[in-house]
Amino acid sequence: MSVVERSVAELVKDIAVKAVQASRELSRLGSAVKDAALLRMADDIEKNAATLQEENKKDLAGAKERGISKAMLDRLTLSDKVLKGMAEGLREVAALPDPVGEITGMTTRPNGLKVGRMRIPLGVIGIIYESRPNVTADAAGLCMKSGNAVVLRGGSEAVHSNLAIAGILRAAAKASGVPEDAVQVIPITEREAVTEMLKLEEQIDIIIPRGGESLIRFVVENSRIPVIKHYKGVCSVFIDGSAELQMAEDIAFNAKVQRPGVCNSMETLLVHEAVAEEFLPIIGERYKEAGVEIRGCEKTCEILKDATPATEADWGEEYLDLIIAVKVVADMDEAIAMIEQYGSLHTETIVTSDYQNSKRFIESVNSSTVMVNASTRFSDGHQLGLGAEIGISTTKLHAFGPMGLEELTTRKFIVYGEGQVRE
Amino acid sequence: MSVVERSVAELVKDIAVKAVQASRELSRLGSAVKDAALLRMADDIEKNAATLQEENKKDLAGAKERGISKAMLDRLTLSDKVLKGMAEGLREVAALPDPVGEITGMTTRPNGLKVGRMRIPLGVIGIIYESRPNVTADAAGLCMKSGNAVVLRGGSEAVHSNLAIAGILRAAAKASGVPEDAVQVIPITEREAVTEMLKLEEQIDIIIPRGGESLIRFVVENSRIPVIKHYKGVCSVFIDGSAELQMAEDIAFNAKVQRPGVCNSMETLLVHEAVAEEFLPIIGERYKEAGVEIRGCEKTCEILKDATPATEADWGEEYLDLIIAVKVVADMDEAIAMIEQYGSLHTETIVTSDYQNSKRFIESVNSSTVMVNASTRFSDGHQLGLGAEIGISTTKLHAFGPMGLEELTTRKFIVYGEGQVRE
Repeated sequence: MSVVERSVAELVKDIAVKAVQASRELSRLGSAVKDAALLRMADDIEKNAATLQEENKKDLAGAKERGISKAMLDRLTLSDKVLKGMAEGLREVAALPDPVGEITGMTTRPNGLKVGRMRIPLGVIGIIYESRPNVTADAAGLCMKSGNAVVLRGGSEAVHSNLAIAGILRAAAKASGVPEDAVQVIPITEREAVTEMLKLEEQIDIIIPRGGESLIRFVVENSRIPVIKHYKGVCSVFIDGSAELQMAEDIAFNAKVQRPGVCNSMETLLVHEAVAEEFLPIIGERYKEAGVEIRGCEKTCEILKDATPATEADWGEEYLDLIIAVKVVADMDEAIAMIEQYGSLHTETIVTSDYQNSKRFIESVNSSTVMVNASTRFSDGHQLGLGAEIGISTTKLHAFGPMGLEELTTRKFIVYGEGQVRE
Repeated sequence: MSVVERSVAELVKDIAVKAVQASRELSRLGSAVKDAALLRMADDIEKNAATLQEENKKDLAGAKERGISKAMLDRLTLSDKVLKGMAEGLREVAALPDPVGEITGMTTRPNGLKVGRMRIPLGVIGIIYESRPNVTADAAGLCMKSGNAVVLRGGSEAVHSNLAIAGILRAAAKASGVPEDAVQVIPITEREAVTEMLKLEEQIDIIIPRGGESLIRFVVENSRIPVIKHYKGVCSVFIDGSAELQMAEDIAFNAKVQRPGVCNSMETLLVHEAVAEEFLPIIGERYKEAGVEIRGCEKTCEILKDATPATEADWGEEYLDLIIAVKVVADMDEAIAMIEQYGSLHTETIVTSDYQNSKRFIESVNSSTVMVNASTRFSDGHQLGLGAEIGISTTKLHAFGPMGLEELTTRKFIVYGEGQVRE
């Protein structure tokens, strides 16, 4: 049967079945083999920079023809710097500790059975992503280190780049004793390839979508495979009545302005009414200098004459821009109620000098990251000490918050007996 | 608007929204309050036994009219023994340690941030189950102890029993200071209630279906909410060439015969060819006495003249009955290949006296429970020391294997700073 005669469903399933086989071999490889493969993958990315950029030009030409935005073109480009970043990323992952094989909680049952849990790879991970071709190498590296095979399905606009990167990674893996099918890119640009992939619950253990909210909703609505997802980051900072105002100013400024286009930047500032009259003019001035547009509640607009009145939609908005929603609240209960009603379970910070309030905020707010006296911008895998990050989960199953290598594994029970049978 | 005018979708969503509210209150309650509620729930089940059995009679009468099997009627009956079991179960859960609030992995980052993880409830748990009304109390107890609200949707044949049990649990909760909406039964018997429930990904954090394979497939195919599932238990025992044959006989007999109708009983016996001629006649005799039908590979049928030749379908079959598939294998690699091809990721045991083989089996077989020299029948939450069991997961996300209280929780990141901002 020639390739052209085969259906998309068959082609995608073939890839997934090969991934299952590879994942079984990969799960039994020691760290040394996996690390050697990762280092070779890094070297080969650098050695083949010219080839990769040649393939990338095809994607860029196609994208220009379709008239995509400059921001999108930037994200699609495999510049020298991006390629170097990919290689460095693979080397960093090689240097991280291998989570696989760790045994925890070993106890002896009354009947003498020794029971514990051993950390194992998830198996096959499906990644569905948009434009940035460097995700191909980043995700492949994290999956390989944690003993998982990966099936990658990037955006059609980056298909030449993604296939070229995967080709290099696969050859490097094979040369290092790792099955090449541990890294596979689906070469089909039709959306049908995604819907077929999402049906393969027997082969693929988990789907991680990386992209905009519409991509993620499409994946969730069409997947029979569990999805780890992150719709948006509507992060907030609550300035308590007891806050040191210099610290509050620094954090509120940093969380909004340092890099507004990312998910862990602050979108909503909640200010205790006891400090609103003193604090809002200070931070308002700083925001004004930085070009931040303020959308305020009634009280905020009374204090800051430049502020635009906020509408209901502002409280749950992920601006990803120099815009902020500001609300004066009567107390911490009102702040927590705002977070529960409008938040996205991403990251919330309290700025406070009060012990009881810090404790109650940490215990009561069940977002994936909850902070005292620190900028929301620290909410990522590198900053929180995971060593690497495959994504941030804002749903509670399996992983909640930034996900590193450990979140790409699971634990099986292991039992050592001496002939025990059940009465 | 009167109740009859409202759509199923609206009614189900209302229940889920109330569950979210209750889950927020419940997540902040200390163990003492939750435990007092659980003990009162147990007492009130016992005190109201007559009322519960009265309601149960309505379900039994309906079931008899529809002519359901005696086994199903047994499962539906709230006998004195079943009611006592429900109350005892609630008391046992009250006595278990509370997983919520545990802080682990607290470390200090180079910039002085203290980062750790705090265990928190999942939020709202949806349970979809068939006939056994005691699940209503069992699941409600485990969810409450772990700080979760629960939305229960039992089978239509048990709706009077389930509503009566939930009514008692809710009143006991309320009288103990726990929001009554932490325990809710969907009172709608149409299947539409299930499909509507499975769309509520904004309100319900996880779905646990408990029932036959067709129920579970229906849930997986229709759910936008993550599902923790367990299709079937095709458990196997591999008798290695180095096995002590008396131990092998005891384990192979116990795993098949002690309670054949449950998921952790053995369905497939794999025997190393080095011991097949000696071992198979011994275990064959024991099975014969117990009325076990043997479906064997060619070699097995040569050794055991009574055995029926196995077909391809036998190797992946969950008999749940006194039937066993037996295969002679050349070595452990063939045994592992059989498990990978036909197993269900539930439980596998090796019987061996060889150190290397025990180690390789434990490391290579990635089922949710892997054992050396012990009966597969130990694969449940109580036997493995979890204290309680809400189900067994044979998929790797979030939980793998028997699930106790900890598996009904997740972890958030907590961060303590002193004004740090990101450079």
